[in-house]
Amino acid sequence: MKTKAAIAWQAGAPLTVEEVDLEGPKAGEVLVEIKATGICHTDYYTLSGADPEGIFPAILGHEGAGVVVDVGPGVTTVKKDDHVIPLYTPECRQCKFCLSRKTNLCQAIRSTQGRGLMPDATSRFSIGGKQLFHYMGTSTFSNYIVVPEIALANIRKDAPFATACYIGCGVTTGVGAVVFSAKVEAGANVVVFGLGGIGLNVIQAAKMVGANKIIGVDINPARIEMATRFGMTDFINPNEVANVVDHIVQLTDGGADYSFECIGNTTTMRQALECCHKGWGQSYIIGVAAAGQEISTRPFQLVTGREWKGSAFGGARGRTDVPKIVDWYMDGKLRIDELITHTLPLERINEGFDLMKRGESIRSVVLY
Amino acid sequence: MKTKAAIAWQAGAPLTVEEVDLEGPKAGEVLVEIKATGICHTDYYTLSGADPEGIFPAILGHEGAGVVVDVGPGVTTVKKDDHVIPLYTPECRQCKFCLSRKTNLCQAIRSTQGRGLMPDATSRFSIGGKQLFHYMGTSTFSNYIVVPEIALANIRKDAPFATACYIGCGVTTGVGAVVFSAKVEAGANVVVFGLGGIGLNVIQAAKMVGANKIIGVDINPARIEMATRFGMTDFINPNEVANVVDHIVQLTDGGADYSFECIGNTTTMRQALECCHKGWGQSYIIGVAAAGQEISTRPFQLVTGREWKGSAFGGARGRTDVPKIVDWYMDGKLRIDELITHTLPLERINEGFDLMKRGESIRSVVLY
Repeated sequence: MKTKAAIAWQAGAPLTVEEVDLEGPKAGEVLVEIKATGICHTDYYTLSGADPEGIFPAILGHEGAGVVVDVGPGVTTVKKDDHVIPLYTPECRQCKFCLSRKTNLCQAIRSTQGRGLMPDATSRFSIGGKQLFHYMGTSTFSNYIVVPEIALANIRKDAPFATACYIGCGVTTGVGAVVFSAKVEAGANVVVFGLGGIGLNVIQAAKMVGANKIIGVDINPARIEMATRFGMTDFINPNEVANVVDHIVQLTDGGADYSFECIGNTTTMRQALECCHKGWGQSYIIGVAAAGQEISTRPFQLVTGREWKGSAFGGARGRTDVPKIVDWYMDGKLRIDELITHTLPLERINEGFDLMKRGESIRSVVLY
Repeated sequence: MKTKAAIAWQAGAPLTVEEVDLEGPKAGEVLVEIKATGICHTDYYTLSGADPEGIFPAILGHEGAGVVVDVGPGVTTVKKDDHVIPLYTPECRQCKFCLSRKTNLCQAIRSTQGRGLMPDATSRFSIGGKQLFHYMGTSTFSNYIVVPEIALANIRKDAPFATACYIGCGVTTGVGAVVFSAKVEAGANVVVFGLGGIGLNVIQAAKMVGANKIIGVDINPARIEMATRFGMTDFINPNEVANVVDHIVQLTDGGADYSFECIGNTTTMRQALECCHKGWGQSYIIGVAAAGQEISTRPFQLVTGREWKGSAFGGARGRTDVPKIVDWYMDGKLRIDELITHTLPLERINEGFDLMKRGESIRSVVLY
């Protein structure tokens, strides 16, 4: 079949929207009509050429929501007309990782996904006979996609696509880090480094679970208003205090119970660890650092009880936990609408990247 | 009263054994006759002058066992003739840390202890009218000591002092890291960097809780025999493999579930983290690094699920958990006897330090 899609031909070049050939679903696979997709920093990172694992030409996008159109042989967990969110972290429920009960990082199709291919090591996308690579197993910058059944979260039908798509990456990454990775408890003091989309989702999840102090750290005071609306109780501008770590330790009477680094900066990663409370403070790295960069600290920080951890896709098991987050949003426990600052048709997708680059959007969403 | 004690007059100098004046116990304090004390690397570290927090002149020693001789007013949890292990990490059960249920690092008397003083900010030790400092709140290189009630574990009377004293530091540090800090489960794969006293105790605890592979890493093949007897299943000499991390990942089909760094070397600390299994491997730093040294890694190691932690005094709450470890030893679940390689009278304590320096002892114990 044919589908409209935005193609990333090479690093640094704008996307071009074209008619693309899409092969139908094989065994265990599903054809999905994408209704909406967010434009995420990770798409930008890959398109920029900075991602050492970037492959071109490819169809980017990994934060979508849509409807099942057709299923291949053997598919049992979704059917035509189901509403779904494609999962760049799938959940096979059968691999060593899924069965460990200790991680959400299903490895069932990781090696082919990393090479831009479906599990049978081929691509379903082509144009004029030339193969196009998949991206993060999802490629939501295409109106229609084919994905493995294990890479689809089946969600309720009353959730609007334009906002539910954001749960495909940003919302889950921030909310899940609090709920599934850190399991923040009521009364805890939480510190959030970086008040962009991820940071705001960390904040609203911390509020949802009853955190006490929710301290936001950002050099941009323009973020204060929305962060406060989402639950931030205290704001720190690192440029206005002598020492961020000391300031947080004082403000929390000993340090953060949980801290979250949502920037991808190795300096703030260290601060996020060291502002944690002696004896039990846990610091989670969410942000992605530039290739080759390293984090450092004195081992004494760990020996005296701080813990350094990370969270990918919010520790969420895609098929199990993503539908829960959709419910929390629909139940009014989480706010997404006001985070979607811009919507665009696919033809104007490059404007979405420009908005992000200029820091003018929280999330731009493409509506098909 | 008078007591025999070994005095550390200054960094780098041998100890001198002398008659020392000891004031009796005040309210909440206990007079203990020390019957045996281990000589630990931490004593050596302080005596060497490398410890930036070392204070002189002091009575070192922190790994003892003895008998209660007298109690001050208000003491309720120990009485005359009770057998006790002094705790350099006390357990007041009332401070924010004890009540957190998340850490063993009681802070009730930390500031005075760090200054070599009793909780009332005075010393009980003097010689010829000159004040001597306490050390780690215990000073077990003195035949008699005064300690706060909260710094005494009440242990069973049939445990021999000559071996039970080792539970005051080394045994608990290694065994506790496995049992209380990491809570290693049956079937887990465990990697231990450094097969000295701490490493051997990590190994025997891993065996006790039913670990699967227990891999020891050391550059000294002389350690293989005893480590194997204690439960090591595989040995790696870093000088004999191309890459320790890769070797461990291969040997464990993906990486360690738990790793323990028992050396204090920042290079092996990094290896201990990076040899952990993606998704859930936890690395615990036990060894103490030289002042000012830092650990580093790529944040990707944490984002993909490895966790970097530390353990002090094995995560054991002194009054609650130390008596349990004594029971495990007396029940034959833990071996201590063969770790005590040398015993000496106090007069020959400097020989114990020499044995340690030359790597000829696992643990030398002074018997009073």
